[in-house]
Amino acid sequence: MVTIDEHGLQVLARAAVEAIESLRRPAGPRSDLSPIALHQLIATLEICPDDGVGLPDVLRDLGSLVWAHSVVPSDPACVAHLHPPVLVPAVVTELAIAASNQSMDSWDQSPAATEVELRLMAWLASLLGMPETGSGIMTSGGTASNVLAITLARSWAAAKLGVDVLKSGLPPEASSWRIICSDQAHFSVQRASAQLGLGRDAVVAVATDSSGSMDVAALDETLSRLLRDGGVPIAIVATAGTTDLGVIDPLGEIAVRASRHDAWFHVDAAVAGAFMLSDRLRPSLAGIELADSVTIDFHKLWWQPFNASALVVRDVDRFDLLRVRSNYLDRGDELEGMVNLVGRSLDTSRRFDAAKVVATLQTLGRHALGEMLEYLVDLAHYAGMVVEAHPQLELVAPTASITCVFDAPGASVDDLRNVQQRLLAKGEMVLGRTEIKGRAALKFTFMNPLSTKDDVKRLVGMVVDELNAIC
Amino acid sequence: MVTIDEHGLQVLARAAVEAIESLRRPAGPRSDLSPIALHQLIATLEICPDDGVGLPDVLRDLGSLVWAHSVVPSDPACVAHLHPPVLVPAVVTELAIAASNQSMDSWDQSPAATEVELRLMAWLASLLGMPETGSGIMTSGGTASNVLAITLARSWAAAKLGVDVLKSGLPPEASSWRIICSDQAHFSVQRASAQLGLGRDAVVAVATDSSGSMDVAALDETLSRLLRDGGVPIAIVATAGTTDLGVIDPLGEIAVRASRHDAWFHVDAAVAGAFMLSDRLRPSLAGIELADSVTIDFHKLWWQPFNASALVVRDVDRFDLLRVRSNYLDRGDELEGMVNLVGRSLDTSRRFDAAKVVATLQTLGRHALGEMLEYLVDLAHYAGMVVEAHPQLELVAPTASITCVFDAPGASVDDLRNVQQRLLAKGEMVLGRTEIKGRAALKFTFMNPLSTKDDVKRLVGMVVDELNAIC
Repeated sequence: MVTIDEHGLQVLARAAVEAIESLRRPAGPRSDLSPIALHQLIATLEICPDDGVGLPDVLRDLGSLVWAHSVVPSDPACVAHLHPPVLVPAVVTELAIAASNQSMDSWDQSPAATEVELRLMAWLASLLGMPETGSGIMTSGGTASNVLAITLARSWAAAKLGVDVLKSGLPPEASSWRIICSDQAHFSVQRASAQLGLGRDAVVAVATDSSGSMDVAALDETLSRLLRDGGVPIAIVATAGTTDLGVIDPLGEIAVRASRHDAWFHVDAAVAGAFMLSDRLRPSLAGIELADSVTIDFHKLWWQPFNASALVVRDVDRFDLLRVRSNYLDRGDELEGMVNLVGRSLDTSRRFDAAKVVATLQTLGRHALGEMLEYLVDLAHYAGMVVEAHPQLELVAPTASITCVFDAPGASVDDLRNVQQRLLAKGEMVLGRTEIKGRAALKFTFMNPLSTKDDVKRLVGMVVDELNAIC
Repeated sequence: MVTIDEHGLQVLARAAVEAIESLRRPAGPRSDLSPIALHQLIATLEICPDDGVGLPDVLRDLGSLVWAHSVVPSDPACVAHLHPPVLVPAVVTELAIAASNQSMDSWDQSPAATEVELRLMAWLASLLGMPETGSGIMTSGGTASNVLAITLARSWAAAKLGVDVLKSGLPPEASSWRIICSDQAHFSVQRASAQLGLGRDAVVAVATDSSGSMDVAALDETLSRLLRDGGVPIAIVATAGTTDLGVIDPLGEIAVRASRHDAWFHVDAAVAGAFMLSDRLRPSLAGIELADSVTIDFHKLWWQPFNASALVVRDVDRFDLLRVRSNYLDRGDELEGMVNLVGRSLDTSRRFDAAKVVATLQTLGRHALGEMLEYLVDLAHYAGMVVEAHPQLELVAPTASITCVFDAPGASVDDLRNVQQRLLAKGEMVLGRTEIKGRAALKFTFMNPLSTKDDVKRLVGMVVDELNAIC
């Protein structure tokens, strides 16, 4: 058992150093073991012997069997997903979070931690330009944040009809409820609608322009058609940084429409929310301060280990839409000033992830984080130029933020697939592959501020070599 | 940025030792700062300065402002909640999980980690006595596991009507769907029903007997009444270890009813699931092997840091009810044997929490873990005897598993509240307080195998002293 005393901390420190020493990595972004070979290798791991094994042996086996065959997000050739390398202050604070094991559901399981999470949320709301009433809650990921936002929007829509939807379930009117987002929005908007009983079909996708940004004229048309057909737009979701193209929807213009239709205005800023830290990048998010709620994903461009996300709301009272009392938590008759965060969350027990975010923000500071973001945006822009200059490649859309999406006009859909799968199989590159409006494409996602222009040229060269080997 | 090379690991090890050295704790289970004083103290924390501060200073401040005013789950007087002290192998593996930062949504972000999670789930299904088809998925907590189970149950009920509820939303028939559980079930069953659009009112609570266990005659009566009124029981949720009394419902008998009514049989074994590790305690869970799904909460009696939970299903194909494809994840045209776990989860990015569970199981082994559980059950039983023997106290129900719930016949509801709040305010004890069938009660929850019978006597004495000081 971890004990916080001199002896306990010595034991922990010794074991922590052993755990770090046992970390292994493949030569490239991943090893070249096939899925089936890896399956067979991991099958040799005995999960729970009757009698325990020494910790050093356990850590050593994890090193050689697991970490050595993991993906390396800090490798410059790991560019498939919004899957970041992580910062030292965050990683070591994870250790303290685990050792201290606060649970964020009730104050009496996390007194100081509750206050820290609230402080972080207040700072975040203020960074986003929200009024003093702004606050939020940490969640397990961007998907969970979007689900929570749309849960609040659903309750809000029901409340206008005098219905407590959490108590009585969806009213008959719910069959006309619609959630509006662009055709480039993250699939978690559909998942949220599915989860909430509205169904994926209740999500209406608005067309995007050639850059991948929500087309405001198309939004107006969609809303008019919807109203004509008896639909009720309960929420409009704008994306600040789409998953593939990194594009930011016109937030201010969308906010006006949401307000006009009395719809909840949610901004999914999982990708680009961190741009608020940079004086240069912040203007692209103008209008975010008008949102009813904003998804922030610290485990993307804030370089936090999973999980670390937040949902910020412009008015903390909106969480009253969610509140449930229980006999053993959040009874409402506690000491003055005692806040039980379970009332804001869809989770009960919850990790003190706020601590690692705070340790990171304090250690690096806003300027350094802003510069890292600017560097990555510039690097993606450079990648766009290298791709555009190459005779065999073509950008699918102009680079925006930190991704570069392209195809090879001479190559088939299967060719692109094979390029990505072969590079992955050989362990040379973890490359992204997606589809933009029906067009197959490859994708670089730049998350690592230590990657260089030379790395970019090398990656483009590897893709072209692989294409040529196939075609 | 964390890099997995000689220099990177040295930097990490140095910082990890600093993080451990900065851990602080109050003298007791928590400090005596009031919520308001703590609020003022944490308000001095600058969340994000423009320019960064050295990591050692950041860690030191976290130590004196945050960790020193946290709750200490390893203190014998920390007995309010299912809030465990944690094991060294798990805590140091957290560091490796964070440094390696695998994301469990797609194989190309977590190749070996995906296989490890699958192995752990297969082992868990087999521990529960499920057939070879059993598997599962890690979740962020017991609540998330219960929500996932009831999501599957809802899809299954809809599928019987030929409806894809995730696509089209709740069909009109859903207004008659009911979820059955006991009146001692965890509130997350209601939360799940609320979240899914069925509403809390769709949850039908079956009466429990004097021990707090679901009364099977009452279940039969409830089912008959329900069918008479046109209701459809889509799921029956049994609890294996209720939150307050730790009681296990009669799983085998409930399974028979679920099967008879073609209802999804879910067992919420968040509390007592670990009893499967002990030859002595396992028989109390007989019938769990018949479940369609089981919630297991590793961050309870498996002594894992938050978050670490699982939902186990008896047939892995049931996850097909959930599957969503996206353009950039889980496209279905990958290398042979490649599994993308996003298809089983309500999350997208997800932590490799399975690693810490595996490191713990391997290091301690089944026998040692089983003995720790047996010790705690015996300790709770001893506490029950001490309480019963005391003239001022009375057990609310016989002790089962690891809690001891009692009141003081001479004391009012307010008196009990004051005892708990005063002990918390002084930082002397984090005591549980709840309500069993309308009767106010205090609660000890024993999670720490290092606690002794002397500790139990001392805790009872402290409660009585506080009662006498008030009354």
